[in-house]
Amino acid sequence: MKRVVIAQAGGPTSVINATLAAFVEEVMDENKLIFSKNGYEGLTYGDFLDGTEEMNKWVIENKHVPGACLGSGRFPLEDDSIIQCVDQLKKIEADALVVIGGNGTMEALCKIEEEATNRGYGLQVIGLPKTVDNDLGATDHAPGFGSAARYVAQTTLDISRDLYSMRNFEQVRILETMGRNAGWLALASGFLRQYEEDGPHFILIPERPVKKEVLLQEVDNTIQKYGYAVIVVSEGVQWEEKGTWQIEKDIVNGRTVLGGISSEMELFIKEELKVMARAELLGMNQRSSSMFISPSDFQEALQTGACGGKWLKEGKNKIMVSLQRTNQFDYNISKIPVDLKDVVQEGERKLPDNFIHDHKAYYRWLAPLVGEGLLTYPSPIPRRDSHVKEPY
Amino acid sequence: MKRVVIAQAGGPTSVINATLAAFVEEVMDENKLIFSKNGYEGLTYGDFLDGTEEMNKWVIENKHVPGACLGSGRFPLEDDSIIQCVDQLKKIEADALVVIGGNGTMEALCKIEEEATNRGYGLQVIGLPKTVDNDLGATDHAPGFGSAARYVAQTTLDISRDLYSMRNFEQVRILETMGRNAGWLALASGFLRQYEEDGPHFILIPERPVKKEVLLQEVDNTIQKYGYAVIVVSEGVQWEEKGTWQIEKDIVNGRTVLGGISSEMELFIKEELKVMARAELLGMNQRSSSMFISPSDFQEALQTGACGGKWLKEGKNKIMVSLQRTNQFDYNISKIPVDLKDVVQEGERKLPDNFIHDHKAYYRWLAPLVGEGLLTYPSPIPRRDSHVKEPY
Repeated sequence: MKRVVIAQAGGPTSVINATLAAFVEEVMDENKLIFSKNGYEGLTYGDFLDGTEEMNKWVIENKHVPGACLGSGRFPLEDDSIIQCVDQLKKIEADALVVIGGNGTMEALCKIEEEATNRGYGLQVIGLPKTVDNDLGATDHAPGFGSAARYVAQTTLDISRDLYSMRNFEQVRILETMGRNAGWLALASGFLRQYEEDGPHFILIPERPVKKEVLLQEVDNTIQKYGYAVIVVSEGVQWEEKGTWQIEKDIVNGRTVLGGISSEMELFIKEELKVMARAELLGMNQRSSSMFISPSDFQEALQTGACGGKWLKEGKNKIMVSLQRTNQFDYNISKIPVDLKDVVQEGERKLPDNFIHDHKAYYRWLAPLVGEGLLTYPSPIPRRDSHVKEPY
Repeated sequence: MKRVVIAQAGGPTSVINATLAAFVEEVMDENKLIFSKNGYEGLTYGDFLDGTEEMNKWVIENKHVPGACLGSGRFPLEDDSIIQCVDQLKKIEADALVVIGGNGTMEALCKIEEEATNRGYGLQVIGLPKTVDNDLGATDHAPGFGSAARYVAQTTLDISRDLYSMRNFEQVRILETMGRNAGWLALASGFLRQYEEDGPHFILIPERPVKKEVLLQEVDNTIQKYGYAVIVVSEGVQWEEKGTWQIEKDIVNGRTVLGGISSEMELFIKEELKVMARAELLGMNQRSSSMFISPSDFQEALQTGACGGKWLKEGKNKIMVSLQRTNQFDYNISKIPVDLKDVVQEGERKLPDNFIHDHKAYYRWLAPLVGEGLLTYPSPIPRRDSHVKEPY
């Protein structure tokens, strides 16, 4: 019987509670659970919830609920806080620490493990992956991304059809996706596109700085051709003209909140092309829309939690659960333990060149993650023979 | 065999194509269909599509597609254009004009009918209702609204749970809904709320001007109590301090595009309360998200189109198809013809006082429109007995 502390950290996803619930179901009979509130903040200040039968049941009831039911948040983990976390874990005699999170979370988990080892405190640590923007390394992908990509793909097609019908009033929409330094989510916006008339007509990703003049010219051409243009832009996109320039919206707890590049693009497209343009942030729905939970993403979120629980019982240590494709042709996933240090070393994973150059290859890779049940439509252009000739 | 011109006008909805498709299915065997492109613009300039077998089939294939497949748009209809529309209709020897739209559409339809009558041209006109913000008069509600309300209801709950998990980082979200002068859609945001901890904590509607100071005080109280606050605000809300003041974003074709009150609120809440706040427009998804199409709304959209077709064949004239509840207890809808002039006279329909004062009464009224299949969650607060006591 181990005393196991578990936390959710970083930005939530629509399936992070599924991972938590499956982990709890796997370990609760033979172990004592202790829940940390608000991610590393609860660990730092000793704000824990006791895994009573009732509490465990409540966590399991949250399986289908978006957001992180324990609270997560972006708590800045300085060296002092690492020491405090280990103090708190020792105080409650924790045998193991399990955290569901992304890059920052895994880095902090490594540091806590090192601090514990330095003090001769044998703390078992396991990381469970989650992400919306798919920038977590050492895994093929992580739970949360498939649902976010599903949302971006369907929403872009739907909003594109909406704008197509309004093109005598409004010609350009700029949809801004999450993805601080990686274009996985932005590029997913083209997944359902079947006809060249449909949007997205342009997808701008952080991996490729954009020339303002080139973009303007191409948007203008597209409006001439189809009467409208849909642009998808990742929040972290940079202008080639400005080098490292990004829109910084706010700085909270030392972390910059990006956002607003679409509004800037709205203004200059209006001014330069004299058309009606509208920026729209795809917003928090990307990571929280229950109706867009991908069935396969949800299943993998459960499997990730259950696997973490199994490995905890087996005594695996200093690892993260990774998802790896086992077959080049059929989609099949194995859960493989990867060293936490390797995850940290790989850092933020960008969209690889082959996917940037070959969108179809990316969409084949993406298809099993966004899951079944998305909608495609007939061509937006009526049959050519239907135009009423003058005079009638 | 009548020669029937049909158009879609105004902002599209996720079910406006369902109404069109069902109308076409109902009338195409016995009548000749002619489609006007981009709403009244096609009527004004004679931009028509011939209802060939293939064209009709394409329209029917668009039944499940969001947006207006014929194009709609906001074409400003001056007196001159009314005359031009009648010229064009005469030119193609149209016997009937059917337009799917909202308040402005019905008004224009009336004028076209009057102009035709004045010229001794016996044009049959029928209006088919559509709306997202439910401000169309002389009907209980109109197709399009149920799906938009479904989106707003589920999204507000989901984003509320997302923020709840992030409240050590971000405390306030301000969600802006459509609804220029009517609060139906904004008030729908509370439909799924079961616990006082859940958002939305405040719903601001155009029918009730808001005092800045009062709002600030209440938001502050809510943050003290629950650690966060979710505000839903209709795009047309006014501050009591400024009388008729609204955020005007753009003026296109003489029509003001609202939007931005949530950004203004973000700024002053940040400044006054020194908390992290974020504005989010619920955006075009409200009227175009295919995944949020309400099953009952979709069915009523079809019924509205089919009913319009039947009445066209029966020779009904100068009317709009209205939906009326026939029973106080069980939800049951009758299609009743209402005089187009009565629709115009009623003007924009606001949220009635009884719903503003009694949200539960509104939600009982709303339930059959948003349809089955929405998700509710367990309380966001873990069981009270679970807190780990110090010392552990």
